[in-house]
Amino acid sequence: MANKRRTSQTKAVAAPGRAADVAASAVPVKIALLGFGTVGSAMARVLAQSKLPGVVLTHIYNRNVERKRASDAAQCVPASVVWTEDFNDIVNSRADIVVELMGGLDPAEGWLRRCFAAGMSVVTANKQLIAYRGATLARLAARHGVQLLYGASVAGGVPVIPGILQGLGGDRIVRISGIVNGTCNYILSHMETGAEYAAVLADAQRLGFAEADPSADVDGLDARAKLCILSRIALHAELDPNAVATQTISTVEAVDFAYAKELGCTIRQVSLAHMDAKNRLVHARVAPMLVPLTSPIAWSRGTQNMVVASGRFGGDVVFSGHGAGGEPTAVAVVSDILAVAHRSVAVQLPVHRRAVTGELLAPQYLRFVVDDRPGIVSGIAGALARVGANIDSLLQRPGYPKHKLPFVITTEPCLTSTIERAVVAMAKMNCMLQPPLCLQILALDDKAE
Amino acid sequence: MANKRRTSQTKAVAAPGRAADVAASAVPVKIALLGFGTVGSAMARVLAQSKLPGVVLTHIYNRNVERKRASDAAQCVPASVVWTEDFNDIVNSRADIVVELMGGLDPAEGWLRRCFAAGMSVVTANKQLIAYRGATLARLAARHGVQLLYGASVAGGVPVIPGILQGLGGDRIVRISGIVNGTCNYILSHMETGAEYAAVLADAQRLGFAEADPSADVDGLDARAKLCILSRIALHAELDPNAVATQTISTVEAVDFAYAKELGCTIRQVSLAHMDAKNRLVHARVAPMLVPLTSPIAWSRGTQNMVVASGRFGGDVVFSGHGAGGEPTAVAVVSDILAVAHRSVAVQLPVHRRAVTGELLAPQYLRFVVDDRPGIVSGIAGALARVGANIDSLLQRPGYPKHKLPFVITTEPCLTSTIERAVVAMAKMNCMLQPPLCLQILALDDKAE
Repeated sequence: MANKRRTSQTKAVAAPGRAADVAASAVPVKIALLGFGTVGSAMARVLAQSKLPGVVLTHIYNRNVERKRASDAAQCVPASVVWTEDFNDIVNSRADIVVELMGGLDPAEGWLRRCFAAGMSVVTANKQLIAYRGATLARLAARHGVQLLYGASVAGGVPVIPGILQGLGGDRIVRISGIVNGTCNYILSHMETGAEYAAVLADAQRLGFAEADPSADVDGLDARAKLCILSRIALHAELDPNAVATQTISTVEAVDFAYAKELGCTIRQVSLAHMDAKNRLVHARVAPMLVPLTSPIAWSRGTQNMVVASGRFGGDVVFSGHGAGGEPTAVAVVSDILAVAHRSVAVQLPVHRRAVTGELLAPQYLRFVVDDRPGIVSGIAGALARVGANIDSLLQRPGYPKHKLPFVITTEPCLTSTIERAVVAMAKMNCMLQPPLCLQILALDDKAE
Repeated sequence: MANKRRTSQTKAVAAPGRAADVAASAVPVKIALLGFGTVGSAMARVLAQSKLPGVVLTHIYNRNVERKRASDAAQCVPASVVWTEDFNDIVNSRADIVVELMGGLDPAEGWLRRCFAAGMSVVTANKQLIAYRGATLARLAARHGVQLLYGASVAGGVPVIPGILQGLGGDRIVRISGIVNGTCNYILSHMETGAEYAAVLADAQRLGFAEADPSADVDGLDARAKLCILSRIALHAELDPNAVATQTISTVEAVDFAYAKELGCTIRQVSLAHMDAKNRLVHARVAPMLVPLTSPIAWSRGTQNMVVASGRFGGDVVFSGHGAGGEPTAVAVVSDILAVAHRSVAVQLPVHRRAVTGELLAPQYLRFVVDDRPGIVSGIAGALARVGANIDSLLQRPGYPKHKLPFVITTEPCLTSTIERAVVAMAKMNCMLQPPLCLQILALDDKAE
């Protein structure tokens, strides 16, 4: 049954192209690292264990550097490395590549500008910096004849950015969607089994998957920065991150997963951007959404990330994997280091600034918690009718008390602003024990085969 | 509930890096196309509709070129294009890039050598040529200072090759697995619903998803070539395609899907290669395998392709999308054209020739069809015991006739050669109405979060 054959030859094949030059080069590419935290120490470990030819770590900057130097994580760092807490040592280090893993806008931006001016390329995982200042910094790098790579800034170890730049440049990507925040995905994929938000968040904090102040993650600000970077790469659209609509996941409750399941869906924090037909306006949103179980976006579990690039010619392309954690993110950083070391310049198509709107046309999920009494459905239906939204289904699961009754209405596709007007009106009804929750239902439109 | 803001600025942002140079260049990059079939005409359509700056199609070669020129597909081809059936016209075309979409080893190899010698870079989707002759041709291209790109040779429009080269160079990929043959995936994912192989194959042939002679697809030769290309890219291991073990999907029956389902699995043609611990020997195999429903590989439907790169540092990274069809494949071709046009050189790590074996350690699925009588299980158990294979489970679904009874035994992990010795012995038992079917059960070993 098996057509199995074996061979045993083992001989060297000369490396094609430029690799041989880099490997054989007498002068190694020197790396200076800013920030010896989780990702920085993982990067040092990957470099040490991979023994990449032609790449050598020479400097590490960190505040309170002696504490870092004495840590277990520092054991993989070669003795030749210079540890410093003075950034001037980095500027004067004669490094070829500075790896920035500090995060934040300040002082990172100013420091990177000084690196460019000193002729050093930069590899960074700093999503906020790249979302807000990436276009400006890329121009500055080009002016100084150096590179700025940021493959690690979105989806950690999943090569979404290089995959789109090098592999999908020939398509016209019209929509980018997916899961780019591991913390929210951890929380929501664990809530699927019936746990409440607060309990899962507390677990996530204990396990190190969520910050003490989780707002940047759960309110969508982290994902928003990544969505703006993806818009630049995939839609060639430069967005103002502050203008991208966000909705917190913190108002999603266990009961919503029960209702979502009845609708053949689960709930995920989805980041979504699509270009309008005229190629002028980007519709973008970061929000918890109902995702059909048949969508790849529903399959991500735990801290996994997943990005779907939808092209006019190639249809949906899915990238997924470990979106967080030291070593996966370090893989993206080291891959970018290799790209600079091999003088590999990515395909860069022209990018244009685009206006952004949170308006999306989609079916909507509305969950109410009411003190049950006659006339509630009639009142809700009236509010929907007044904005012109059509009810698609009404779901009421058994087993809840009448005085605190959760139930769900779904609508046919309507605009975000339309349903929000209805929600504002409905929230004023006396029976409502809490504000109604409105979640967009994600539509699937890729046709396999 | 929603924090939605809008802006309306729309201003141009200068393109970062090299793109502006290419776009602004007065001299466009000239493309000559070999082969105006499904992918070739889709490529012409994508080029025409995308209006890529700085890229122009100048020549098309095809046999019986007048028939092609008169076809509907030719309507998107600019009037300025020179159509020819003489390859010398291509060599003399002064094209910068020759796109080879003819397929096969001969005359493609000789023609590409002439293109390199004439100073032309080559973009190709030719998997057999790249699997068998890719390393040699890449060296030749480098010697002539031109590029050879083949992103379209594996998984059509899914950017596996550029994603791995540019985005996972910093990892040490130890295993590559997935679905790279759309025809087999179409057949097997349709058999899930209970249809028999022959009926689904006939459907696939009618719909154009399978060739009149389907053997290259169903017997694994197409997937084997792609697996060898992926081994070169991901494992940095050059394999002899003829030495890679293959097993046909044509012996899988509807009943196997029913039993697979009881085991929490489905069946897919899986291409699998992993590097041994000493980095010397590659274990590789193309075969129908039982795939756990929790694996991403089980999720691919229809002609979708999916490749999982498993890295030592970054864990599993999944790429999926449309693996076949004119336009998805054309996206990969045009992306490679852009890479050459932008003088983007991929990261190339050293590749070494490696020996290959079909030996894999895995649990096994054995399906028998017997004329039921006493002593059969005892005979099978004895054959397994003699090779040292342990039975894990015995499944017998009700409702089949005793004189033609299909039943299943699964084993604990054992080597391919071990189970094959047992199968040879069991096939000789008088009760067997057909040779036993043995399928490897794919193990999952990536831990999300």
